[in-house]
Amino acid sequence: MSQPLTGPELAGSCPIPKSRYPEITMGHGAGGQLMEDLIHRIIVPTFDNDILAALEDQATLSLPQSDSRLAFTTDSYVVQPLFFPGGDIGKLAVHGTVNDLAVGGARPLALSAGLILEEGLPIETLERVLRSMGEACRDADVRLVTGDTKVVERGKGDQIFINTSGVGLVAKDRTLSIASVRSGDKLIVSGTLGDHGIAILSVREGLEFETTIESDSAPLSGLTEKVLATGAPVRVMRDLTRGGLSSVLHELARSSQVGLVLEESAIPLKREVRAACEILGLDPLYVANEGKLVAAVPAESAEDVLDAMRQHPLGADAAIVGEAVADHPTMVLMRSAVGGERVVTMISGEQLPRIC
Amino acid sequence: MSQPLTGPELAGSCPIPKSRYPEITMGHGAGGQLMEDLIHRIIVPTFDNDILAALEDQATLSLPQSDSRLAFTTDSYVVQPLFFPGGDIGKLAVHGTVNDLAVGGARPLALSAGLILEEGLPIETLERVLRSMGEACRDADVRLVTGDTKVVERGKGDQIFINTSGVGLVAKDRTLSIASVRSGDKLIVSGTLGDHGIAILSVREGLEFETTIESDSAPLSGLTEKVLATGAPVRVMRDLTRGGLSSVLHELARSSQVGLVLEESAIPLKREVRAACEILGLDPLYVANEGKLVAAVPAESAEDVLDAMRQHPLGADAAIVGEAVADHPTMVLMRSAVGGERVVTMISGEQLPRIC
Repeated sequence: MSQPLTGPELAGSCPIPKSRYPEITMGHGAGGQLMEDLIHRIIVPTFDNDILAALEDQATLSLPQSDSRLAFTTDSYVVQPLFFPGGDIGKLAVHGTVNDLAVGGARPLALSAGLILEEGLPIETLERVLRSMGEACRDADVRLVTGDTKVVERGKGDQIFINTSGVGLVAKDRTLSIASVRSGDKLIVSGTLGDHGIAILSVREGLEFETTIESDSAPLSGLTEKVLATGAPVRVMRDLTRGGLSSVLHELARSSQVGLVLEESAIPLKREVRAACEILGLDPLYVANEGKLVAAVPAESAEDVLDAMRQHPLGADAAIVGEAVADHPTMVLMRSAVGGERVVTMISGEQLPRIC
Repeated sequence: MSQPLTGPELAGSCPIPKSRYPEITMGHGAGGQLMEDLIHRIIVPTFDNDILAALEDQATLSLPQSDSRLAFTTDSYVVQPLFFPGGDIGKLAVHGTVNDLAVGGARPLALSAGLILEEGLPIETLERVLRSMGEACRDADVRLVTGDTKVVERGKGDQIFINTSGVGLVAKDRTLSIASVRSGDKLIVSGTLGDHGIAILSVREGLEFETTIESDSAPLSGLTEKVLATGAPVRVMRDLTRGGLSSVLHELARSSQVGLVLEESAIPLKREVRAACEILGLDPLYVANEGKLVAAVPAESAEDVLDAMRQHPLGADAAIVGEAVADHPTMVLMRSAVGGERVVTMISGEQLPRIC
């Protein structure tokens, strides 16, 4: 998915003509360019409001008489298989939404769950998923307070889809934003990339490695609290889900109008994940994670934030992986271990469908 | 679905043995007893918290320094067909969630949207649904502020499923609750019953009547404001969706430990809906509405509330349809026009699948 830098025509994204996709394709759900197109061309104009248009992972709304703002986020989970090494759809549904609140600096307050069940789903499977959601809620110290269940006919769904929405409180003066990254800022990832996507794919493809690759699905609220407690003027944090680190960096680069440069040798990768990516022809930059984030911080605070992350179990492998530059705004480059730079393109459509 | 009163063994609900349903059936999504069973036996114990266990249409959470509480609700919409007389899945998704906030006395603040799209969905269909959602948001004076889109393979979904979650603010001292109905309270419905369900079914079955039966899909927040502005000590309001008036009344009767008696002749019904119900063998008490509510109010306030409803376009056909009694707690009875009472049983499972 990355390609050698041969000229300006290979800039981060190329617009897709409307007529090329008269129908929804799997790629529209892959966190890449097709989805961006859908969001920017149809969704944002239709609902026409500043909060949605900001395209943060969570909306924030002012509250009367309060020194907090309300953070509000939603995600649906359609992962297949439902159960995989290191997690299941229930855990994912809790972690993913908790993480969308946490990376905005919000303290998760409560979750909702909307279940869409396929007729014929064994009640036992449902119970197993719900138990797992319950455990994940307790782990993340968040309550699931409201829900809804719908059933669709056999063949009109796929076992279980789960929507979780979440509300949280964020300090009024907190200004994390994807539009706030400045040239010179350092990019810090909280751990190894690609574990979740490769765990799912290994199950689907029946791949076996020396050790089982487990999803990194985890609630990041403890880690983000650690980071914010440093008092460092963190610009933005984002969890790295569909489309992986690459998709998030493209969003940052575009919204903040900066260039980003990654150091290939600095990117933390598990040996097995690297091997699996080589076998499967995947670039780990595009593979989904469910318990990792990237933070952009001013250079002078980078070591403090890195230390804070490393003190948390979910940040043990945190690393500074790159920086923002004034050159080539909106473009993401990768500097390889042997020198030389290549453009990291934005994933266009499907890489790993139904990963979350 | 209603049956003659022949003895106490026909009480409102009969427990369903666990082993009878090892799998999810369409009935588990129908707003009746199977769904209740799922909620009480699995969901509430798993997530074990008072707010969820209250089973109101919306959760409420306290907010720091505020004289408001946060109302939070979620619903998924899987209606088929997507477009029907009087509405579509997009309108429904906005109205339904706005209504769940409104009946709790909350002022809707913002909505989220989680789309699950089936591969192959024409982009044009998606645009039409989204435009309709946008209009419905403007009508209901609520902003859609955050969203998520997932795509599933052809045959693993059904065109579009939409989850909307909503947040709103409710005065701290507002105490609407399904557990607060007292003997002597009057039951007021805001208009004719069954329009939405019969509109959907007419399209599905290709039924034609003199006039097209249109869904009553509408945002009830204006109507609920009118009602609350009377200052009457309203016990509870509920919108009448899946399972119709019957399901809501069973919830009230059980939670408040009162009996309820309906006057058959007082129940507002459109002539065409009555005719359709007769042809189809349906009881309008069980048919879904998407722009109607029931309120329980002390007898001395009933006329005030009724007047307030009737002054609003969505309450023009409001009527007092029954009352709460000390006799036969948890049971719902219907007094027929010719005298005589019958038990209104709780719908057990499927009546009209995928009505919302």
